[in-house]
Amino acid sequence: MIETKISAAFYRGDKSFVVEQTAAQVPNAGEVAVRVAYCGICGTDMHVYHGNMDARVGLNRVVGHEMSGTVEAIGANVTNVKMGQKVVVRPLDHCNDCPACDAGHFHICHQLNFLGLDTDGAMQEIWTVPAHTLHVLPDDLRLDHAALIEPVAVACHDVRMSDLKEGEDVVVIGGGPIGILVAMVARDYGGRVVVSEVNKARLAIAQKLGFKIINPAEVDLKAEINTITGEKGADVVFEVSGTQPGVDAMTEVAATRGRIVMVAIHAQKPKIDLFQFFWRELSLVGVRVYEPVDYEKAIGIIASGGVDANTVITDVAPLSDIQKAFDDLDRSPTALKSLIKVEADA
Amino acid sequence: MIETKISAAFYRGDKSFVVEQTAAQVPNAGEVAVRVAYCGICGTDMHVYHGNMDARVGLNRVVGHEMSGTVEAIGANVTNVKMGQKVVVRPLDHCNDCPACDAGHFHICHQLNFLGLDTDGAMQEIWTVPAHTLHVLPDDLRLDHAALIEPVAVACHDVRMSDLKEGEDVVVIGGGPIGILVAMVARDYGGRVVVSEVNKARLAIAQKLGFKIINPAEVDLKAEINTITGEKGADVVFEVSGTQPGVDAMTEVAATRGRIVMVAIHAQKPKIDLFQFFWRELSLVGVRVYEPVDYEKAIGIIASGGVDANTVITDVAPLSDIQKAFDDLDRSPTALKSLIKVEADA
Repeated sequence: MIETKISAAFYRGDKSFVVEQTAAQVPNAGEVAVRVAYCGICGTDMHVYHGNMDARVGLNRVVGHEMSGTVEAIGANVTNVKMGQKVVVRPLDHCNDCPACDAGHFHICHQLNFLGLDTDGAMQEIWTVPAHTLHVLPDDLRLDHAALIEPVAVACHDVRMSDLKEGEDVVVIGGGPIGILVAMVARDYGGRVVVSEVNKARLAIAQKLGFKIINPAEVDLKAEINTITGEKGADVVFEVSGTQPGVDAMTEVAATRGRIVMVAIHAQKPKIDLFQFFWRELSLVGVRVYEPVDYEKAIGIIASGGVDANTVITDVAPLSDIQKAFDDLDRSPTALKSLIKVEADA
Repeated sequence: MIETKISAAFYRGDKSFVVEQTAAQVPNAGEVAVRVAYCGICGTDMHVYHGNMDARVGLNRVVGHEMSGTVEAIGANVTNVKMGQKVVVRPLDHCNDCPACDAGHFHICHQLNFLGLDTDGAMQEIWTVPAHTLHVLPDDLRLDHAALIEPVAVACHDVRMSDLKEGEDVVVIGGGPIGILVAMVARDYGGRVVVSEVNKARLAIAQKLGFKIINPAEVDLKAEINTITGEKGADVVFEVSGTQPGVDAMTEVAATRGRIVMVAIHAQKPKIDLFQFFWRELSLVGVRVYEPVDYEKAIGIIASGGVDANTVITDVAPLSDIQKAFDDLDRSPTALKSLIKVEADA
């Protein structure tokens, strides 16, 4: 039974959030109301906080999509979940009527509706979503760890699109939160992973997590990778830095026929060494969000401990403290993933 | 039996060739002497002619690698060809001792020896080559047409690396000799091919060959491709122009999950719209020369008429006129492929 009033955190512009009581949305046919347990703060949410996405999200938006929760109420014609089940939401709603959907690429639908940006998201006690977006979790999965499934699914998609095989050499360029998750998933696939990063706090975290680290501001990255790989270079390179030096490095460290995965969002158009693409038959693939199979893989990795959730989660704050949580994350050089504990007794 | 003296055309620098008598090379063990029938002039040979490759080829080099011929003499331990057989040479000799060779990518060996550039080539009556570089032709294949096998194999490699499937929409950006061959091979695969080119003489040739043509200097290429493809975009894009506008266009015309093949050699580092790679999960693959399977495919296409050889071959000149043939090709806006008839009575 859904109570009439719930707490929800509204973005109101200029780095500000306000927690207010609002009406819980009763699920219509094909929808499910989820009681939100935890919701992580995504880099995209930080972009909202900084005002960079006001045109898209407006000034009265409940953000949040990296969530976990339990099924609270079920609308008509829903068969894929049961009351009380632990679930996560894959926050993508597609149009089923565009060339991308026609080709089965629903996750990059031309009119994609991203829940928590284009509609209200999970920073509220009850989140009502289309049933097709739900993935059911194992009963014994911790809901704080489960809030990592969405970002881990991003990493699973990135690694799957790289076609990484066991024993291959991997370089992750950029050791921020997504880079670290990509590194962890690539290691779970059996890759031999090196993390390249210039921020010393991030390097320390990557090293603590057991990765070989290189600071390209201090040593010659290409020479180091050649030494490590017996002059072969990296079979797979993930460009997660979003910088011109990162783009320069990606072609330098790649092996002949190396596969480069473009994880970062480059708003500018960087210069790329296309000659190296020709000379060594490199390939580059752009990757965006995830598909259902990536969510299932991420659930399995979280459930099996393939990602060190306790190290990745660096802060947990109640919904009432969401303002401080965003402010703190914005200032922290070492934070990886901050969670908001939305349900008071989760 | 090999005569002592043969005619050979030597590049002597600054757009000059000299035809002189030279000693035919008797095949050593593992080698085969081929009596050269025809040899096409490659774009790379034109780079040599212009002096751009003097550091690599020197000033006394016999160029040429787009050849056809017959087996004239066979060294010891050669089992793959017989005397008198029609053959073409795949002009790549690999080291068998580098990471690329270790991975089976012999055609992009780190110490690749390109016959006709790094060693003397086919613009001579007898060309002695490693036996493993030979492909045997059908007895009834015309040797002038067979001289197109090498450039067609380039196109076959490009199209194979694109994973083109029947019925897919293809845009070839750049309608020069290689672009036209790529377009022909893509059509042979069942692709629906559009050629984008600004040179009106080349557009006329592409149209004569039955391709849909677009001049992006006159119409909006992206809008045209969207109209042709029902707003989907091109499944496969071949960038053959080697220009920044071509690189800009390649991301604009590609469909969601479109595959872009980098055929052109970009000596500069162009700016690339990486955001589109992310947003629509585009991929880019660099391609270089060919593998044995591409030669076999090219032989089949030439034998079956899948490439209109008579339209592609726009000039044939005897070896004694090689200087004029290069000079003419350099000046011609409409020439596609000039052949040198090396064997007087081929």
